[in-house]
Amino acid sequence: MITVHGYTPSGNCWKVAQVLRMTGQAFRWVEVDSNAGGTRTPEFLAMNPNGKIPTAVLADGTVLVESNAIMCHFAEGTALMPPPGLARTRVLEWLFFEQYSHEPYIAVARNIVSFLRAAEANAARLEQCRIGGEKALGVMERRLGGHDWLTDHGPTVADIALVAYTQAADEGGFDLARWPGVRAWVARVLALPGVEGLQRAA
Amino acid sequence: MITVHGYTPSGNCWKVAQVLRMTGQAFRWVEVDSNAGGTRTPEFLAMNPNGKIPTAVLADGTVLVESNAIMCHFAEGTALMPPPGLARTRVLEWLFFEQYSHEPYIAVARNIVSFLRAAEANAARLEQCRIGGEKALGVMERRLGGHDWLTDHGPTVADIALVAYTQAADEGGFDLARWPGVRAWVARVLALPGVEGLQRAA
Repeated sequence: MITVHGYTPSGNCWKVAQVLRMTGQAFRWVEVDSNAGGTRTPEFLAMNPNGKIPTAVLADGTVLVESNAIMCHFAEGTALMPPPGLARTRVLEWLFFEQYSHEPYIAVARNIVSFLRAAEANAARLEQCRIGGEKALGVMERRLGGHDWLTDHGPTVADIALVAYTQAADEGGFDLARWPGVRAWVARVLALPGVEGLQRAA
Repeated sequence: MITVHGYTPSGNCWKVAQVLRMTGQAFRWVEVDSNAGGTRTPEFLAMNPNGKIPTAVLADGTVLVESNAIMCHFAEGTALMPPPGLARTRVLEWLFFEQYSHEPYIAVARNIVSFLRAAEANAARLEQCRIGGEKALGVMERRLGGHDWLTDHGPTVADIALVAYTQAADEGGFDLARWPGVRAWVARVLALPGVEGLQRAA
C-alpha cells in the first residue's frame, strides 16, 4: 500500500491525498508536523534529504518527493493528467507557476499569520507575500474569469495543485471577493467527487 | 518556426535554448531584458500575463510559459525526457526542486551580486540565499557524489534545468569546490553535444 508522510493542515500534502482519493488508490497517512521539526529528524532526512513533506512511499519502498511530482505520478493514466502533448504542457505550466509564483506567497502568508501567529515580527515578509500573492491571484483570475478549469482538459492535477492553498488564502490575509472567478472555481474544485476541503487553522 | 523570448544571461532562458539545440529544433531568439522592464510592457503581458521569461511561441502562435514546462514540451519523445512512469517522475522531482529549492536562492543571489550589483543593500536577502543555496547544493551532492546524472535515465531535462544556474553559482558567491560531485557534473553536462555555457556576468 502507498504511504504518505504529511502534515494535515499543509496544502502541499493535501494535494497528494486528494489525487489518491479521486483516483481510488488506497493509502495510509503518517502525520509529520513540519512546524515542530518532524522533517528535520535523521530518520526523515534519510528518506527525503530535502526534508520536506509530502513524501510518499510506494509498496516496494520507492520514495517519491515534491508534491507536484507525486501528484503527476499517481495521476498518470487517469483523467486528471492529460497525455503528453500540449494538453499536458498546459498542466505543467500551472504546476510550475504554483510552486514558483503562488505557494511562496499565499502558503507562506498563511503559515506566518495563522500557524506561527507571527505577523508583526514578519511585517516586511508579509508585505512581499501580499504583493506576490495578489499578482498570482490576478493571473489566475484572467483564466478563471472565463473558464471553469485552469486548462481546457477539464479538472486536472493543475486545479488540485492551485486550489490547495487558494482555498485557505483568507488565512494569510487575502480576500477572494476581489477575484470572483477564482472564488467560484475554488467551490467548483472542492465539489468534485472525492475531494475534501483542507483543514482550517485552529 | 519556434520563437523564444528570452534574456541571454538568464539561466531559465538558457534551459530552453539548450533543449532546442540538443534536439535539433530550429528557433529564433528575441532578446528581452527583464532587469530593464522588458517583461512589464503591455505587449509582453498580453503574451504572458505572469510577465516572465522565457516565453516561447510555436509556429501556429501557441504561447508556452514556465521554463521547465517549455523544456518538457520540446523534449517530449526524445531521450531528454523519459516516458511516463517512475523514470519521468524522477525528472519531475528534480524540476520542481529546481524551481522551489534552488533557483530562488542561487539565481537570485547571482542577480543581486553580479547583475544588480546591490549586495550591500540586500545583505539579509543574500544571507537567506546563502543558507538555501548551500542546502540545495548539499541535496544535489548526495546524488551526484555517486552518480553521473541526476536520474538513472542518463542526461535529461533535469540535468539541464539544474545546471542552468549551478554553472554560474560562483557569480552569487557560492564556491563549488565544496561540492565536488556537483562541480564534476556541471562539466559533464556542459560537455554534452549541442550545449553552450551560460553567458557570464559582464
